[in-house]
Amino acid sequence: MSKEITSMKEDYSQWYNDLVIKAGLADYSAVRGCMVIKPYGYALWENMQRQLDTMFKETGHENAYFPLFVPKSLFEAEEKNAEGFAKECAIVTHYRLKADPDNKGKLMVDPEAKLEEELVVRPTSEAIIWSTYKGWIQSYRDLPLLINQWANVVRWEMRTRLFLRTTEFLWQEGHTAHATEKEAIDETVQMLNVYATFAESYMALPVIKGVKSANERFAGALDTYCIEALMQDGKALQAGTSHFLGQNFAKAFDVKFTDKENKLDYVWATSWGVSTRLIGALVMAHSDDQGLVLPPKLAPIQVVIVPIFKGQEQKQLIDEKVSVLLQQLKAAGISVKYDDNDNNRPGWKFAEYEMKGVPVRIAIGARDLANNVVEVARRDTKEKMSFSIDGLSGQVITLLAEIQQAIYTKAKNFRDNLVTEANQWDEFVKLLDEKAGFISAHWDGTGETEDKIKELTKATIRCIPLDNKQEEGKCILTGNPSTQRVLFARAY
Amino acid sequence: MSKEITSMKEDYSQWYNDLVIKAGLADYSAVRGCMVIKPYGYALWENMQRQLDTMFKETGHENAYFPLFVPKSLFEAEEKNAEGFAKECAIVTHYRLKADPDNKGKLMVDPEAKLEEELVVRPTSEAIIWSTYKGWIQSYRDLPLLINQWANVVRWEMRTRLFLRTTEFLWQEGHTAHATEKEAIDETVQMLNVYATFAESYMALPVIKGVKSANERFAGALDTYCIEALMQDGKALQAGTSHFLGQNFAKAFDVKFTDKENKLDYVWATSWGVSTRLIGALVMAHSDDQGLVLPPKLAPIQVVIVPIFKGQEQKQLIDEKVSVLLQQLKAAGISVKYDDNDNNRPGWKFAEYEMKGVPVRIAIGARDLANNVVEVARRDTKEKMSFSIDGLSGQVITLLAEIQQAIYTKAKNFRDNLVTEANQWDEFVKLLDEKAGFISAHWDGTGETEDKIKELTKATIRCIPLDNKQEEGKCILTGNPSTQRVLFARAY
Repeated sequence: MSKEITSMKEDYSQWYNDLVIKAGLADYSAVRGCMVIKPYGYALWENMQRQLDTMFKETGHENAYFPLFVPKSLFEAEEKNAEGFAKECAIVTHYRLKADPDNKGKLMVDPEAKLEEELVVRPTSEAIIWSTYKGWIQSYRDLPLLINQWANVVRWEMRTRLFLRTTEFLWQEGHTAHATEKEAIDETVQMLNVYATFAESYMALPVIKGVKSANERFAGALDTYCIEALMQDGKALQAGTSHFLGQNFAKAFDVKFTDKENKLDYVWATSWGVSTRLIGALVMAHSDDQGLVLPPKLAPIQVVIVPIFKGQEQKQLIDEKVSVLLQQLKAAGISVKYDDNDNNRPGWKFAEYEMKGVPVRIAIGARDLANNVVEVARRDTKEKMSFSIDGLSGQVITLLAEIQQAIYTKAKNFRDNLVTEANQWDEFVKLLDEKAGFISAHWDGTGETEDKIKELTKATIRCIPLDNKQEEGKCILTGNPSTQRVLFARAY
Repeated sequence: MSKEITSMKEDYSQWYNDLVIKAGLADYSAVRGCMVIKPYGYALWENMQRQLDTMFKETGHENAYFPLFVPKSLFEAEEKNAEGFAKECAIVTHYRLKADPDNKGKLMVDPEAKLEEELVVRPTSEAIIWSTYKGWIQSYRDLPLLINQWANVVRWEMRTRLFLRTTEFLWQEGHTAHATEKEAIDETVQMLNVYATFAESYMALPVIKGVKSANERFAGALDTYCIEALMQDGKALQAGTSHFLGQNFAKAFDVKFTDKENKLDYVWATSWGVSTRLIGALVMAHSDDQGLVLPPKLAPIQVVIVPIFKGQEQKQLIDEKVSVLLQQLKAAGISVKYDDNDNNRPGWKFAEYEMKGVPVRIAIGARDLANNVVEVARRDTKEKMSFSIDGLSGQVITLLAEIQQAIYTKAKNFRDNLVTEANQWDEFVKLLDEKAGFISAHWDGTGETEDKIKELTKATIRCIPLDNKQEEGKCILTGNPSTQRVLFARAY
């Protein structure tokens, strides 16, 4: 095999980086902290986008597009939001380059082209969008406003990792406006549920739905709902967030509406987003030392067919049969590739498509043809089986569904096994180092305790699960009274 | 009617602005020269994207994503390209804001967070992409590389207009790498043809395919191919370009490959793009004083149904019938909306959907129901007709195809009538003012003459049509010998 990657056991972090590069998902770029999303990674993103976009539209949302730049005066209008993002903003200060008189052939920033007001490259779009909504909302008839945007955003992160944390990333951000508090909260929860459904049914990624503690809230939100997933190294990963913004942005941008009783009130808001980070989650949750394991519902190639032959005569017979099979599989809505590239041998191809996580591999040789069968290998379990050529597409559809379910079940069992209760501090610390995963423990509800725990253990409160059981207890750190357990973990 | 717009005759430019705003396509934003693309405008863009993306994939291209930022040292590597865009670049110089000590609650750029190397917000991505391709291309086996990117770009334009010229715009940019000059030229022409097919078959926009003069070439290209369309005021609009870049970028970024004979050579390149500018072209080419006229193949809503009733009893009967019709129309792949909103009267709705350019309007009243018919109005000709309810979807499909064709034919007749030959300078100047459109005239082939003509008349050479007839003649300005006519026009 030409493409070896570090094993997961040896170095999980290096395994991940190797895999992302070797599977052709992404590449490093010449720009600090930014990545290039390669065609195979982008095809995965397109499949995720398509499904999410459908779900957003089914829940009544429309797409729109708002400017990349936020004038500083708008950016700072909602103070908490501004404070939260100020430290990681790329700032445009000039609008022209000119020839550098001291360096032939080189350019320099033209000092005469300085902007009167600096522009922030959006780290998130609440400010620019709510300054626009002001012009769109006058009465309750203009509400709700249910808008989503697919866009790039920039956050100047100090430590970056492919997909998981990059200076620029792609995402969608929903920004909705409502007449009542209840409607806005319902929307926040609805979109959390859309994300959870997407994660579980499409990404095969079990998630826990919950609410963030005040410390971990989105800057400017009254409540941040989240879905939390577990990676194979036992670290948690926040996979999506949905924010109830109250009237904070409406007040900052003076967005009022007249209600049915002709009274003037500020508009209620939500925002919610998921990003290319989900690709990192997908990779980390399911893959192994041979490469990616992709859920069939999102895999860019669901089935690959590899011919095994000696001589052109055999090849031609296989080609003829495969061309019929390709038609049948495509007609059944299956994304299939026939790799009859002469430059690579079957063994190389097998390894390559394992690396790329193609869920089903079909090998077909002269003897198979004679027996009217094909050899089928599933990527997730590496199990091999023989399928009759007759009715192949129906069998493949069933197998793809089985694989989708199996990947989810495996991840779910793994995750369920790593939600552990801790009742003593020593136990808590020991678990973090030895069993990791989510630790369910009592917490006294203060930000100070949360900070202290993070400082001592690097574990944070991932969420307070929705519909959490209420029970008397004592805070794992301070021993102060607590009414419920929350989920701690070390996280990406 | 609540929404009136300036008439085209009175002020074409104001008509366009009014229309874009009143039809809900876009809005001005708080950021200089940037627009907000509203849901209806974005839905139009999504339809254009979907079709173009399909055509790109059918011709073997894959999507990928490259960074928004281009480090200055990469930006300046291809000198002509850099020179061409240097004057209109947004530059990121800092990566942090901090609290302004002199202004409570305000932020300022943190002078300590100055970048060592400034970042250019991409005005186009050749530089960042070719610096990446260097790592991807070693041998002829890595070629061709056929990649497209959907992205936002920024060009600091001095005078902006909604869709037609904005500081930030959305586009796609194809960037391909090839082993031979011929293959790269073939690709350039292939993508020009894809654009022309899209413009004519989907946008119903007749275009002339041609090559730009040296003056109008893309900065860094050896040849720029283009499609040129004519707007209803007789001004031309460049609707898409496809560039043959030769080995310029390969040389600038040192991208070499070993060919089949094991010889090292620079890679050949193309790039090609269309943008949200196409929405402006669509609006300007077909619309009228009542609003948008959209070609059915791209219209976000193809058919709107409006109930006409007195009292809830009639309404209920109509609702029942309509729910069956909606199912039938949707099953036939038609995008249909039933507007039974109580807040607005039928007359208001008729005007609203005319403004929005919905190709077919169906009105259905109690008497229609009794007669088993509906009243159908086409947006383009405003013709009204009566369709039987039986087999309605089949009739609507036929009508939509007729409208698509009629819009194209109308635009084509208009355009054909405005391609005029001029053989004398006085005639040329007079035509520009009185008949406008494309003027076909001899030109001596020099940039100086082209500049002089532009200075005197504001007309530019739009293109040298492909497969242009060769004929002896004298330059319209200088009288110097010429071998072919080229197309002049005033342009957007």
